[in-house]
Amino acid sequence: MSIKQIAEMTGLSMTTVSHAINGTRTVSRRSLALVQEAIEKTNYRPNLAAQMMKTHRSKTVTIIIPETEPNNSTNCFYFDVLNGAKSCLEGKGYELIVSTYPEYDVGKLMKTSVLQHKWIDGILLVPASDRLEDVEPIRAIGLPLVLVDRWVQGCDLPQVTSNNREVSAEAVRLLYQSGGRRIAFIGSQMHNSTALDRFQGYCDAMDELGLKKDESLIFRMPGHSLDYGYEAASSLLERGADAIFAANSTLCLGAMKRLNEKRVSIPKDVSIIGFDDYAWTEVTNPPLTAVTQDANSMGRRASELLLRLIAGEALDNSRISIPAKLTIRQSHGPRGETPSGNTAKATDF
Amino acid sequence: MSIKQIAEMTGLSMTTVSHAINGTRTVSRRSLALVQEAIEKTNYRPNLAAQMMKTHRSKTVTIIIPETEPNNSTNCFYFDVLNGAKSCLEGKGYELIVSTYPEYDVGKLMKTSVLQHKWIDGILLVPASDRLEDVEPIRAIGLPLVLVDRWVQGCDLPQVTSNNREVSAEAVRLLYQSGGRRIAFIGSQMHNSTALDRFQGYCDAMDELGLKKDESLIFRMPGHSLDYGYEAASSLLERGADAIFAANSTLCLGAMKRLNEKRVSIPKDVSIIGFDDYAWTEVTNPPLTAVTQDANSMGRRASELLLRLIAGEALDNSRISIPAKLTIRQSHGPRGETPSGNTAKATDF
Repeated sequence: MSIKQIAEMTGLSMTTVSHAINGTRTVSRRSLALVQEAIEKTNYRPNLAAQMMKTHRSKTVTIIIPETEPNNSTNCFYFDVLNGAKSCLEGKGYELIVSTYPEYDVGKLMKTSVLQHKWIDGILLVPASDRLEDVEPIRAIGLPLVLVDRWVQGCDLPQVTSNNREVSAEAVRLLYQSGGRRIAFIGSQMHNSTALDRFQGYCDAMDELGLKKDESLIFRMPGHSLDYGYEAASSLLERGADAIFAANSTLCLGAMKRLNEKRVSIPKDVSIIGFDDYAWTEVTNPPLTAVTQDANSMGRRASELLLRLIAGEALDNSRISIPAKLTIRQSHGPRGETPSGNTAKATDF
Repeated sequence: MSIKQIAEMTGLSMTTVSHAINGTRTVSRRSLALVQEAIEKTNYRPNLAAQMMKTHRSKTVTIIIPETEPNNSTNCFYFDVLNGAKSCLEGKGYELIVSTYPEYDVGKLMKTSVLQHKWIDGILLVPASDRLEDVEPIRAIGLPLVLVDRWVQGCDLPQVTSNNREVSAEAVRLLYQSGGRRIAFIGSQMHNSTALDRFQGYCDAMDELGLKKDESLIFRMPGHSLDYGYEAASSLLERGADAIFAANSTLCLGAMKRLNEKRVSIPKDVSIIGFDDYAWTEVTNPPLTAVTQDANSMGRRASELLLRLIAGEALDNSRISIPAKLTIRQSHGPRGETPSGNTAKATDF
């Protein structure tokens, strides 16, 4: 519908209609009501168009997350982040657009269609890397921007992440308390903060426990697939590992698959703790002790910050760390044995 | 930015600016260029606003899916549907808004904020039920609408689903070929088409195989949680089941948890086939034979239909059935035994 059509319907002049829609001059209450009625009667779309021209707000934000292949449990994690964001945003009348980009192709991030159209009010971004230069082009767009799940080195944007480093150290301590001495690390390349923090947590605990960090037991795989976890587990058995901290859920699945195939008893021969917790961890062989992240809270808290930015608040260097915790099952220590008092305390954040 | 401000910047009259933006009268190419330049220079938002007023298109559609609790593998499935939809839509310059509603509260569906705002170009809907009356209010909005994952009884809207009934019958035939005779069904209430079709598939195969459908072995649980699967498995052991078709992944996980706890050997004592396939099915005890749906294709094909509707094509009664298939692992029959030639063929759609 055009201004001309509204003018014809209402019998008002085009100038009056234009002023009514754009708020550029006070029009009579009767005229305003006539224009609103005409808009509602004929077509809903100018509602938003008119509102956007007036307020410069679309009441729509986007969440930009890395692409994952089908059936990958990381999809579960991001869906929970997204649900948390939605629950916060929809209370405030905001819609959420989902965008994705290939994780290993930062250039494509800027080509995300929602950034090309540039009509959104704000961005929740899971950055591809921890390098400031990779997030700068997004920031330069000038829209309210909050980083989620991963932080960026030297960046003063508001950020919401799990306490990856601390909880990873807890996991390694639990492996130690359960008898592990040659504790292996299976993670991915250190190109983003979650990979880095989980490795740092492993190092923190190893140092604190006085254990040697044996490079041959540290696996930085090129990606997150089950196959890479499987491959890592094949090597670490030969290298005498007696425990594994798997810093990602699909790598963990791959490692368990290999151990089960080789009929290595978990946790009798090798204990294992995974990262991220899903319903299936109850039914692995054996049930998996794992780090549980609060993905829903992560999405919700990040959206709260974003709405404050949109409202014009300054939030430089706002950092929120969402506590993750260990969920105790059977893979970390002798089957059927309850963790020691010390361990139980360690899991209580 | 308002029409008035553009007029001031460009030195054109407000009437000319309004005609330029709304396409209500031909303006000179120079004027049009000036207005476009002004819009680009100052604020990106009127771009969409102006375009929407002119074309009545926001180039945005929504996917409406049932809410799921955190860490539920159903999240994985819907995320894959969503990714498929995105990959199709973004090629055509469309954005995708995610909306959710509580599955057991159809009334809330209509209150979904994106439907309240009513400025989207189309809707992909996973309907709550298979009853026409539940989908009618959404259809009455008058926007292009495609049903995804679940169909609705007697409805001529375009629909894209898996071949749930046929693949479920295949699963039951495979359990029979592996020695199952007292084959139990674990599913949810028959309030939507996926639940109904999977049960019908079970019945088809039981009838075809000449097996008695024993009501005491048919479990229609009140929901999809792991606990309900656990509960069902407790009862069916007492009732002499020797095989289980679990029509949902979390129900399947719950059943396996119970069987493992009771140290019932799978598949020696009880064989089991699950519905939906994820990375974790490799590492359950034992690795799970399961139905694999092509969720990504489902999202892509549904989006293709939606874009055709938006373009004005009539697509009444367009139904697309996406082939699902059985992925063979070890839970359906004697461990280590390969399915017979007949079975292998049966999995080949």
